[in-house]
Amino acid sequence: MSQSVNVGLIGCGNIGTSFVHLLRARAATIESMNGIDLRLTRIAVRDPHKQRSETIDPALFTGDAGEVVDADDIDIVVEIAGGAGPVRELLLTALKAGKPVITANKELVAKHGPELYEAARSAGVDLFFEAAAVAAVPILRPLRESFQGEEFQRVLGIINGTTNYMLTRMSEDGIGYDEALAQAQALGYAEPDASADVQGTDAASKLAILASLAFKRAVLADDVRREGIVGLEQEDFQIASRFGFEIKSLAVAEAAENPDTGEREIGAQVFPALIDRTHPLASVRDSYNAVSVTGAAAGELMFYGHGAGQLPTSSALLGDLVAAADQLRRGTHRPVPVGGPAALRPADELSHAFYLKLQIVEAPGVLSEVTGILGRHGVSIRSITQEGRASQAKVVFITYVTVERALHAAVEELKSLESVREIGRVMRILQP
Amino acid sequence: MSQSVNVGLIGCGNIGTSFVHLLRARAATIESMNGIDLRLTRIAVRDPHKQRSETIDPALFTGDAGEVVDADDIDIVVEIAGGAGPVRELLLTALKAGKPVITANKELVAKHGPELYEAARSAGVDLFFEAAAVAAVPILRPLRESFQGEEFQRVLGIINGTTNYMLTRMSEDGIGYDEALAQAQALGYAEPDASADVQGTDAASKLAILASLAFKRAVLADDVRREGIVGLEQEDFQIASRFGFEIKSLAVAEAAENPDTGEREIGAQVFPALIDRTHPLASVRDSYNAVSVTGAAAGELMFYGHGAGQLPTSSALLGDLVAAADQLRRGTHRPVPVGGPAALRPADELSHAFYLKLQIVEAPGVLSEVTGILGRHGVSIRSITQEGRASQAKVVFITYVTVERALHAAVEELKSLESVREIGRVMRILQP
Repeated sequence: MSQSVNVGLIGCGNIGTSFVHLLRARAATIESMNGIDLRLTRIAVRDPHKQRSETIDPALFTGDAGEVVDADDIDIVVEIAGGAGPVRELLLTALKAGKPVITANKELVAKHGPELYEAARSAGVDLFFEAAAVAAVPILRPLRESFQGEEFQRVLGIINGTTNYMLTRMSEDGIGYDEALAQAQALGYAEPDASADVQGTDAASKLAILASLAFKRAVLADDVRREGIVGLEQEDFQIASRFGFEIKSLAVAEAAENPDTGEREIGAQVFPALIDRTHPLASVRDSYNAVSVTGAAAGELMFYGHGAGQLPTSSALLGDLVAAADQLRRGTHRPVPVGGPAALRPADELSHAFYLKLQIVEAPGVLSEVTGILGRHGVSIRSITQEGRASQAKVVFITYVTVERALHAAVEELKSLESVREIGRVMRILQP
Repeated sequence: MSQSVNVGLIGCGNIGTSFVHLLRARAATIESMNGIDLRLTRIAVRDPHKQRSETIDPALFTGDAGEVVDADDIDIVVEIAGGAGPVRELLLTALKAGKPVITANKELVAKHGPELYEAARSAGVDLFFEAAAVAAVPILRPLRESFQGEEFQRVLGIINGTTNYMLTRMSEDGIGYDEALAQAQALGYAEPDASADVQGTDAASKLAILASLAFKRAVLADDVRREGIVGLEQEDFQIASRFGFEIKSLAVAEAAENPDTGEREIGAQVFPALIDRTHPLASVRDSYNAVSVTGAAAGELMFYGHGAGQLPTSSALLGDLVAAADQLRRGTHRPVPVGGPAALRPADELSHAFYLKLQIVEAPGVLSEVTGILGRHGVSIRSITQEGRASQAKVVFITYVTVERALHAAVEELKSLESVREIGRVMRILQP
């Protein structure tokens, strides 16, 4: 009674191997529950002769990816190779050949999503990429399918496990940035070159994907303004804690009507921010990820789980694979519900409350000078806290919500003051 | 280009009215995005002549539900009437007539789910009920569709907003049970008769639905053992807080192999429990809901949001409606992936760590007597804390994980001791 579906894989590194094992472990159950007999038929890799996991039949490997994406005996393509280069052509070929595609490739989707969506739509086949953003946390499918009647206003998340692990350690263990990074690398959370994590490019790709599905307009990785966590100091965590905040690297995309043009614009940013300790995201610790979406009717929803890792990613891929196989059998498919390019709101036009730490030379009139500059730029101060004295005096400002360009202009002017010795990391404060 | 779909509604109370308004507000967007023109065609209510929202055309109302469930000009039925009585027959009729059904009726699905699933399967139409469990939190669809390759071990949640609101107030404001209930009623979170909330029956119905979809075996409301929050004392919150715990009403379903028979058994319970302050569920405050599911590959995932309310419920209904209309247009449907009845593990065979508060008469040998009884029943003690002295002495025990029947037997024996004046509420402690 069951229908066999031949699966071709592109890529077979750690995640690929994990996926093959999970597929094998769950195949019988999937067949009995869903009536689908998933058969791993071929695996395209760069070097088919390389020594690999002994548990995978060497005869499955090929060095010619065409034997996967353009072969008559492959029904569905699963891509776990990564990168936005040659893989793009391969997946376009697969889609044009009428093969549903499952991919875990966030870089590719965040860069060339619209081209891929269109290719899938024209070919009338499915393109699923649940594993490309926040891995096993099942958020893309609900955004694609559950919320057709919803209008989302905000996507907000902790979507990079490496930096969240580092920030958790800095907050809880009182260690510095370098030690936190070394720990993350020792545990395998961070690559030897951790720049994609700590500079926010990984989170920007994921945010682009999430925002596209939430707002139904294409947001690309380059549309997201990034600030990494490099340069955060232990002292910032101590100060934040005294104010009742945690520091988290947040990815935020907001959609709002431009009051001047009436057009719905999207602003997307990745930055480290202070968030109130009672906010649900504040309790997302270690390498966990969470995404909160706020809709006009549904209110705030949050999804939480492992954002990465071989098994969670494999689970997401397998869920997509079964769904695609099921649709293929029914002769149906679901276009990716993303329209044309998003109208973007420049990051400088977005508004936040800010945390601003200055090291000043304490002298009569200095505070008045500093607050005068903030005031002239329209930055209203919610609180001022001074610590230390004389040449060691530190002043922490918490501002009311203000437009970014005003704050940045004020900071530029503060830099020119002789009495301001150093301006610490400027951080945003998440509004509830 | 768009396809019109005639929608019939059963029930038009507060949620029904809210749903009609949301449908109207979103109809144009849905038509442009999905090519589906949703037309509200008829509304069956008990009394069609009753005064209702002026914004709904009176001509839509009928007192004859047959004109919705069995009428040629209705394509999809949305049920928001509630109750497990006559509505059951109506929905079976609609399904048999080939009409997809969307329902928000947790009581009905938790009681008669298998009969409805089978009717939908036989008729080859969809049955969606996202709004029946944890309303706008989109967890049912991922469980139905995203995790075909996953094996779940646990479903754990805070799924009753009324009791979570009450417990939050008791924890944060230091008020007692009665005042917390009065506040919840004043805010409209609790009905004048709050028994379904505070006794755990509402949560039990939702847990039955969640567990059925997670474990793919039918769990019914009556399969869930319930303990309400009645009788919780302010003192318990204070003690819990000193130990680093919050008190939450939890719904827990676990699937595990019975070591004797090898069969996969499900144990399902609703109870107030102590949970560590660092657990993500501990930060779920006020009337918010959250559900955590743990899978072998995906690890722990959590979904968070408004569990009830007119707008969140309407959003869930509308999402289901668009999905059902889309499937109807494609001539496809997805059976509810729940097999036969679950094998149940008796609640007495489940294991937990426990919190146990005794008021004792302080005298030489009393503690030894009490600990001796616990020990003879195989209950290992993790910590003992004594507060107060002489006849006012209170002793709080935290146990290691122990099987329920052992703990209950020990408590029964403790009751017979003359030196034990009172045994407080026995509560479970959530294991990470």
